[in-house]
Amino acid sequence: MNETLSLLMNHRSIRQFASDPIGEDKLHAIVAAGQMASSSSNVQAYSVIAVTEPGLKRRLAELAGNQAYVEQCPAFLVWCADLHRLHYCAELHAPGEATFEDSAENLLVATIDAALAAQNAAVAAESLGLGIVYIGGIRNRIAEVSELLGLPDRVYPAFGMCVGVPAQEPMLRPRLPLEAVLHRNRYDAGKTAGQVERYDETMSAYLRERTGGRQDTPWSKQMADRLAKPTRMHMKPFLEEKGFLRQ
Amino acid sequence: MNETLSLLMNHRSIRQFASDPIGEDKLHAIVAAGQMASSSSNVQAYSVIAVTEPGLKRRLAELAGNQAYVEQCPAFLVWCADLHRLHYCAELHAPGEATFEDSAENLLVATIDAALAAQNAAVAAESLGLGIVYIGGIRNRIAEVSELLGLPDRVYPAFGMCVGVPAQEPMLRPRLPLEAVLHRNRYDAGKTAGQVERYDETMSAYLRERTGGRQDTPWSKQMADRLAKPTRMHMKPFLEEKGFLRQ
Repeated sequence: MNETLSLLMNHRSIRQFASDPIGEDKLHAIVAAGQMASSSSNVQAYSVIAVTEPGLKRRLAELAGNQAYVEQCPAFLVWCADLHRLHYCAELHAPGEATFEDSAENLLVATIDAALAAQNAAVAAESLGLGIVYIGGIRNRIAEVSELLGLPDRVYPAFGMCVGVPAQEPMLRPRLPLEAVLHRNRYDAGKTAGQVERYDETMSAYLRERTGGRQDTPWSKQMADRLAKPTRMHMKPFLEEKGFLRQ
Repeated sequence: MNETLSLLMNHRSIRQFASDPIGEDKLHAIVAAGQMASSSSNVQAYSVIAVTEPGLKRRLAELAGNQAYVEQCPAFLVWCADLHRLHYCAELHAPGEATFEDSAENLLVATIDAALAAQNAAVAAESLGLGIVYIGGIRNRIAEVSELLGLPDRVYPAFGMCVGVPAQEPMLRPRLPLEAVLHRNRYDAGKTAGQVERYDETMSAYLRERTGGRQDTPWSKQMADRLAKPTRMHMKPFLEEKGFLRQ
């Protein structure tokens, strides 16, 4: 196994960080690596905000559901799907003319661009000995997060990412069996039940070990509970208001 | 610069492949690395279909806008945002009960999960000496692609990825200036104009070099033209029909 594969296979999310800052050189290396990810037709429809001000991190930690590591990490990166820059280009060359920037297609393009860049950045950070955790919680109170960070129309914060020197070494979390996510030539819905059952056993064993036997809810039950709850139902109206997903 | 950073910084999309198959061991390594990417609350809401049947690749190449490399590559991976597996879990534990799986939030969760996994897989493939190119073109005729691959409700093909041994070595494509995508603590919309202007110069020079002077349309003009055209306007109704984005 080469060095890069070994790094990828050893990823775990880090939620405790040393106080060391990450330094301008490393931040540049991380974001530059993010930029080298593919982008749909080279639109590069994303931005990243490196939040290092303690007061701002503290407020974001609260808004993300009181996740202490958002405040504790030396740099909190907010990855945004960004059509603002493209809108600027349209206004530059065809001022006032109608565009189709607010389509569902462009929401996906910008969101996927942001995610590809972020994952490259995550791998780059880990290759430098840093640890990361993604924070979807910034979508909990997304309007307040957007205002706090001064996001213009056509930009939404897709997720955050804590970056810093790891101060813990968590267990690797087992993934679904490979054959649960990998299909050959056509989607095989017939294998879902068996694969979910296998993963339930794996995850319950993992949870028992990690919690000293206090927790072993099957994965499928956690997922069922999750789908049954209304989660971030404000996203659709929020995105529409910000200039996404109108058509 | 470490080996992984060097790999990330040297990414270029490959559109010509040798005829060598990629082999089961490498396919497994690539997908397993994809699985190790982070996933929102461990939902792992994605699947990947490895298409190797020549007739199927040929048809997908046509549906993606006659992109020959989709047929030529030994393995065409179709990365899907997948809520089918989670829906199965809900039905298993609370049959017939209402869920919120069709929210905009869950569309984003599944799309981001698919993109993070795909980018890890892309990095893994490149670390093994393979080349890749992302194919957004499978969204051109997404209903036909979905039917061809037998995708059930609550699964949509987000993008494809050609994988194979590279038979070309394209130039590195310059990205936006780092400061165009990286903001500090708050979004700085004031710098957009200057950064776009800088990148226009860079990209025009790159295009002139790559095309022997035949092409040098500024990037901002390409983006303006792109936004002015209706692109894949079927995505919103298609996603709604498939069980996404209804609330």
